[in-house]
Amino acid sequence: MKMKKITNYSKFSIKTNQISFSMNDVLIIGTVALDTIETPFGRVEKALGGSATYASFAASLFSKPALISVIGNDFPKEYVDLIKKRNIGINGLKITGKTFRWDGFYEYDMNEAKTRKTELNSLEHFKAEVPENYKDIKHVFLANIDPEQQLGVLRQVKKPKFVVLDTMNFWINNKKKYVIDAIKKADVLLLNDGEARQLFNTVNLVNASNQALRLGPKAVIIKKGEHGALLFTKNKHFNAPGYPLENIKDPTGCGDSFGGAFIGYLAKTRDLSESNFRKAVVYGSVVASHNAEDFGLNRLKRLTMADIEKRYKEFQEMREF
Amino acid sequence: MKMKKITNYSKFSIKTNQISFSMNDVLIIGTVALDTIETPFGRVEKALGGSATYASFAASLFSKPALISVIGNDFPKEYVDLIKKRNIGINGLKITGKTFRWDGFYEYDMNEAKTRKTELNSLEHFKAEVPENYKDIKHVFLANIDPEQQLGVLRQVKKPKFVVLDTMNFWINNKKKYVIDAIKKADVLLLNDGEARQLFNTVNLVNASNQALRLGPKAVIIKKGEHGALLFTKNKHFNAPGYPLENIKDPTGCGDSFGGAFIGYLAKTRDLSESNFRKAVVYGSVVASHNAEDFGLNRLKRLTMADIEKRYKEFQEMREF
Repeated sequence: MKMKKITNYSKFSIKTNQISFSMNDVLIIGTVALDTIETPFGRVEKALGGSATYASFAASLFSKPALISVIGNDFPKEYVDLIKKRNIGINGLKITGKTFRWDGFYEYDMNEAKTRKTELNSLEHFKAEVPENYKDIKHVFLANIDPEQQLGVLRQVKKPKFVVLDTMNFWINNKKKYVIDAIKKADVLLLNDGEARQLFNTVNLVNASNQALRLGPKAVIIKKGEHGALLFTKNKHFNAPGYPLENIKDPTGCGDSFGGAFIGYLAKTRDLSESNFRKAVVYGSVVASHNAEDFGLNRLKRLTMADIEKRYKEFQEMREF
Repeated sequence: MKMKKITNYSKFSIKTNQISFSMNDVLIIGTVALDTIETPFGRVEKALGGSATYASFAASLFSKPALISVIGNDFPKEYVDLIKKRNIGINGLKITGKTFRWDGFYEYDMNEAKTRKTELNSLEHFKAEVPENYKDIKHVFLANIDPEQQLGVLRQVKKPKFVVLDTMNFWINNKKKYVIDAIKKADVLLLNDGEARQLFNTVNLVNASNQALRLGPKAVIIKKGEHGALLFTKNKHFNAPGYPLENIKDPTGCGDSFGGAFIGYLAKTRDLSESNFRKAVVYGSVVASHNAEDFGLNRLKRLTMADIEKRYKEFQEMREF
């Protein structure tokens, strides 16, 4: 099936891409999806979702991300408009067949997503291609998608300066070799506690992180949902708190939002020190905690820097002693 | 069966108690046990254990605790010596029948203790009695034991200034009414995340804490094991990190050690402000993290203030951003 690029989707789209030509500073590969989500607090159908979507919305709060992904001919125009409104570069967004769909739910304990149905659709034969004007981008976020696609993107980028890698249990189970290859090429490995335990065959997160660091990354970040996040570097350990949310409506995309905000903040500040990683982890936690407060992208699309800075201060206050 | 008090156990004991007569500043009721513990890293039999034991060892690092509990005639003299060596007041330690025994194990994931066997023995007909010379103690730790016994101790203490309450799932299941009564009389409620969810019938820890605060306590502390601890007061929230231990040998008594160190530090500093609660939570976490590094009381009995202050600094460093 022939694929077309979304650059021709509308005149406005071309204009946006021209403006943002040299501005994009974070390249994000991942999925764009139509999600059907049910939680104890409600249900949405065919909501805009996917790892690259959440990640780029979160990154766009700090910097100018560009997407590499695929959607189908069924993808609603209003969702394209929403993405463009965030100044997210869509030169690398292909259109073919039908959009990837995920249908899942959360039970009372919202820590774990359960999948009802996954339709890969256009994702199945997707080959990630990085447009020429994105090949010089220095900050690359390999958000959750097939690790062969993640590696494919890395091969096309000219001189990536900083690569963040995320993955999920499905790829650890089915393509572990490629996940490990991708980890070896990453500067920062992001994963959640369950994935860390699974990938490194240990319940102990310190042990898992040490194993990960030996593969090459300068830093490992373990996302623990409501329990916060851990950042391990060779000699240091940082512990970011979880934000005490009383009302969690939908945790979908929290990990992707965390990663997007993390790399977005680093791209904005151009400081890759361990101490700035710590700040980036807190910004990641701030954005992810907001994301859980409403369904799909409802919260992220309204989120302002004032909201973010307010909660960042709360993170500071709740750990002072 | 007639009970005798351990004051007459040896001449040394009488002497110790005389010396410490007016010095004891924390009263601790709980269990003293002979524990058989198996973890993936080893096994101990009839080790000195019990909530009051761990709590008073931890408290004794900061202050002068006195115990209210019961042991049997089979209780090894070396354990009494060990308790006395820590200057823990034992006027309230009765001797009758056979010592309470717990036989449990931990599997690969050491977050959860599994019970093989519990022998209540002398604990079954125990009625807590507070000796006259302890009735003026102002700081009271109602460590994990039957809530009717906890309430009994509270009735006997003249003017308790500061009451900390711990409990466990067994009492929540079997004596919920008394647990609630005890919470209403406590200044600080300590419980772990699973117990908080169970007691207040919610997965959400913020919701559970708000319910607990409405019952009367000024503060609620939720212990989350490796994920640290949360302190909730009416308008504030403090998040203490978990210490990143690579080698956990035996988590038995970590919660009790946390509570003992928490109240011990507060009794020592005589400052019951929210900001000092935060420091006390961190000292509790420091002592509990050390406790997990060896079996039974092996680590606590060697622990020095230098060890504690060193790790306290690490807690500060690992949360800076």
